[in-house]
Amino acid sequence: MLNDPSRKYRPFPQIDLPDRQWPSRTIDKAPRWLSTDLRDGNQALIDPMGAEKKNRFFDLLVKVGIKEIEVGFPSSGATDFDFIRALVDGGRIPDDVAIQSLTQSRRDLIEKTFEAMAGTKTAIVHLYNAVSPAWRNIVFNLDKPGVKAIAIEGAQILAEQAAKYPQTDWHFEYSPETFSTAELDFSLEVCTAVMEILKPTAEKPIIFNLPATVEAAMPNIYADQIEYFGRHIPNRDAVVISLHTHNDRGTGIAATELGLLAGGDRVEGCLFGNGERTGNVDLVTVALNMYTQGLHPGLDFSDIDEVIQTVEYCNQLPVHPRHPYAGELVFTAFSGSHQDAIKKGFAHQAKRNDEIWEVPYLPIDPADLGRSYEAVIRVNSQSGKGGVAWVLEQDYGLKLPKKMQADFSRTVQELSDTTGRELTSADIWGAFQDRYFITKSGRFELFDYAENHSGTDRIFVGKLKVDGEFRSLSGRGNGLMSSVIAALADHGGPEMDIVDYSEHAIGHGAGAQAAAYVECRTADGRSLFGAGIDTDVATATVRALLSAANGI
Amino acid sequence: MLNDPSRKYRPFPQIDLPDRQWPSRTIDKAPRWLSTDLRDGNQALIDPMGAEKKNRFFDLLVKVGIKEIEVGFPSSGATDFDFIRALVDGGRIPDDVAIQSLTQSRRDLIEKTFEAMAGTKTAIVHLYNAVSPAWRNIVFNLDKPGVKAIAIEGAQILAEQAAKYPQTDWHFEYSPETFSTAELDFSLEVCTAVMEILKPTAEKPIIFNLPATVEAAMPNIYADQIEYFGRHIPNRDAVVISLHTHNDRGTGIAATELGLLAGGDRVEGCLFGNGERTGNVDLVTVALNMYTQGLHPGLDFSDIDEVIQTVEYCNQLPVHPRHPYAGELVFTAFSGSHQDAIKKGFAHQAKRNDEIWEVPYLPIDPADLGRSYEAVIRVNSQSGKGGVAWVLEQDYGLKLPKKMQADFSRTVQELSDTTGRELTSADIWGAFQDRYFITKSGRFELFDYAENHSGTDRIFVGKLKVDGEFRSLSGRGNGLMSSVIAALADHGGPEMDIVDYSEHAIGHGAGAQAAAYVECRTADGRSLFGAGIDTDVATATVRALLSAANGI
Repeated sequence: MLNDPSRKYRPFPQIDLPDRQWPSRTIDKAPRWLSTDLRDGNQALIDPMGAEKKNRFFDLLVKVGIKEIEVGFPSSGATDFDFIRALVDGGRIPDDVAIQSLTQSRRDLIEKTFEAMAGTKTAIVHLYNAVSPAWRNIVFNLDKPGVKAIAIEGAQILAEQAAKYPQTDWHFEYSPETFSTAELDFSLEVCTAVMEILKPTAEKPIIFNLPATVEAAMPNIYADQIEYFGRHIPNRDAVVISLHTHNDRGTGIAATELGLLAGGDRVEGCLFGNGERTGNVDLVTVALNMYTQGLHPGLDFSDIDEVIQTVEYCNQLPVHPRHPYAGELVFTAFSGSHQDAIKKGFAHQAKRNDEIWEVPYLPIDPADLGRSYEAVIRVNSQSGKGGVAWVLEQDYGLKLPKKMQADFSRTVQELSDTTGRELTSADIWGAFQDRYFITKSGRFELFDYAENHSGTDRIFVGKLKVDGEFRSLSGRGNGLMSSVIAALADHGGPEMDIVDYSEHAIGHGAGAQAAAYVECRTADGRSLFGAGIDTDVATATVRALLSAANGI
Repeated sequence: MLNDPSRKYRPFPQIDLPDRQWPSRTIDKAPRWLSTDLRDGNQALIDPMGAEKKNRFFDLLVKVGIKEIEVGFPSSGATDFDFIRALVDGGRIPDDVAIQSLTQSRRDLIEKTFEAMAGTKTAIVHLYNAVSPAWRNIVFNLDKPGVKAIAIEGAQILAEQAAKYPQTDWHFEYSPETFSTAELDFSLEVCTAVMEILKPTAEKPIIFNLPATVEAAMPNIYADQIEYFGRHIPNRDAVVISLHTHNDRGTGIAATELGLLAGGDRVEGCLFGNGERTGNVDLVTVALNMYTQGLHPGLDFSDIDEVIQTVEYCNQLPVHPRHPYAGELVFTAFSGSHQDAIKKGFAHQAKRNDEIWEVPYLPIDPADLGRSYEAVIRVNSQSGKGGVAWVLEQDYGLKLPKKMQADFSRTVQELSDTTGRELTSADIWGAFQDRYFITKSGRFELFDYAENHSGTDRIFVGKLKVDGEFRSLSGRGNGLMSSVIAALADHGGPEMDIVDYSEHAIGHGAGAQAAAYVECRTADGRSLFGAGIDTDVATATVRALLSAANGI
């Protein structure tokens, strides 16, 4: 068993708020949304984004409808600074979008932050310093007045710098970092001091970001903290309370939602919950949770697959198959009773015709996200390519490349539609062997070949059946594949280029076989996929090329 | 933008419970844990587990300390029935572990369920039927009395069957399925009717499982529902309230935690949140959340990597890199300021010596889970193999097989320890080229080769430098690889078998290269890894074999 944790960990203290109001409230309007994908998200990536990826992500955020975008930490170095200046100078920021930059409270860093954004229409400068006892004692070795003085000094520089660049409409955000593990009254004291410098109004409020920098307590505690802060901060209507939760306890979404009940006005997070460690709160889920309650979040995820693709490309991190709304498996049902109930739900829906969505096991209409309902991914006509690939890998040891999975799924779809029944693993294997001429004869059939060398060139000499007749084919190239392609092209086969190929072993030891996959492109731009299986790796490659040529 | 959702979705109604008590409570004792990995989890898998995987999972659950294990749905077919009987007959169930089986309310199914578990020491029969209006109207076309009658009839058969097998200590669980979207008073009415049949006592209570079959509202609503149920169910001390949440809104963990505040006694879920659609609640996170509050959950995750490996093997689904406590990235920090704060935290910890865990950005001591803190996964001496593999893939297009990643990570570790500085991408690439003789000379160096055929055999004839001298080598085999291995073995190289190999293209079109990887085993059982890069796929394979032989 684990060590006795009572020695090592302490319970998080309760908030004294017996008359809390948030548990009786409902969320009845969408918050302001701030994406920090390009800042908090980006700094947590194994491979931080370069300018190309940042621009792509920025455009996606704009397309989705986010109006406040934290674009970086420009005083941290040239990468962020240059990217932000290029956004501004390139006129890439729509008029209704405000960019935001993070800065620590130091004159040179704050100045750099203003320099990075000067000239844009609307900008938010986000100042932060950590206020909790752990950070004061361990990281900064400062007492409370010392921490408060840092915030006050930063606020003074903000006011001064804003006056220097009057062409931009400057707004301010202040974060008492580590808010959720700090003394509430101290956070209030520091925020109040910042307000006294920046003099926000209801027309031009200050944003107070109240982060759970590390999620350290249950989500109801965070809600208590937010309600307490909102009740005690002076001049409440000159304040926008911004929620910024992380997910260390797996309850970041709940903390944000309960925080909204407790008075939060704005939500900071990342798409699909990227961010430090366990991630920031997932903006997609929070928004779609509102959507399924009849409240439009003001964000557009009607083509969620496009959003997933871009985010996976930029972050180089996967969206989990069980991720709410977005995962591959969340609109599937494998159990027969679930499938049956869903089928009845669709029928009932069609009959009722009142537009209200009420289908068992499906909390949202997949069509609202550009998706369809998949009953059994594995073997029926709703089969996704992932399911078919699984069968081939699990039962036959084949690891099809992604694009070939998509190619083959069309074959499976047709077969399934024709037979009108669930396909078995053997059905799929048979279809694979047919489609790629593993057992079925095609125009080109290999009997034997030799590969000879001539200087640096290779010469392929093959004994083949071509259109049913035995022939000897030869071709020259700088390697095995190019020599085979040359031989085929010279003997009535297609002109092809190699786009991709891969090989792997099936099984171990003496009985092992090789599977080779090729993707070729013809002169007129068609894609041809081929597969070959043989005890010899080189022969498997030759077979895969013939398979591609046969498929034309 | 999305269609106006007010037409299609409706807000979830509030629960009328103004004097709710749960928001002021804390969790002060660990619940009973029920794993449904082998039932709710298994039925949601693309590839459901076979007996081998089920047994492995069962043993893991026992090892982790779970005392109540739902082992299947034995009346659904022979797979589940036979697995459960084999558990019982094989004596594989520890005396302090109760197995549980799910059944619908039909005589033949209930009888089969008792047959499956009869003879074990303690068994729980879990009866369910759905009670919500959507299910009544859409799926079953039954009114409330009809639904209630199904539950009553099932309970009567439970009592009767239990009497038939007195050697087993039978317990009962009843689920008003779809509880969270049903009328609370109707669920209470059905549960009360079931109690009247089964007559539970404080010594032998009934388990009422109150599922959020589909998560349809915020987690505070679920807590209200649980508190309401607990207040109104008669004979409360003869009832165990079991929480069973799903994660459709991403708040399944929060719902369970708030449900515990509201009176839940037992938690049903799956390891790492497997289960239908978005998954069941994740037992690991709920348990470790308690742990970090100084409350021992009674479960042991001190070797979390072993748990992850087994679960990923059995479920064939990944644990996400940002999964709380378990993901690869949750104990890493890429940002310099985070790294610095953590470093200070460790120093402070060592100095304080009071055993209390207080390190910035790390809510749990990674050592408690058998892990270590990794500052920057990418390129320093704490580098995981994943980080190095990323660099090679991102910057050089190489996709190393998993086991080769592990092999190469040792080289990187040594280099990092020697240089004592962060390694650059170029350092790693240089180390790779050296380690696998891509640019560095080894015992065997390829100059040219030909591959000839003799019947079904292949004959490799190579011009090589061996130990610095030009030699002509030949070998015979049933394919390219075996002929190369034979040639090496005949000329002073190691005797090797192929364990695994793979190849892929680097780049596209005419300039594309091939990368080949082999894993060989020598006669004395040593593993040799080799890599080869060439414009020709077959030559890349030959180079990879020489690389492996050079590495001995």
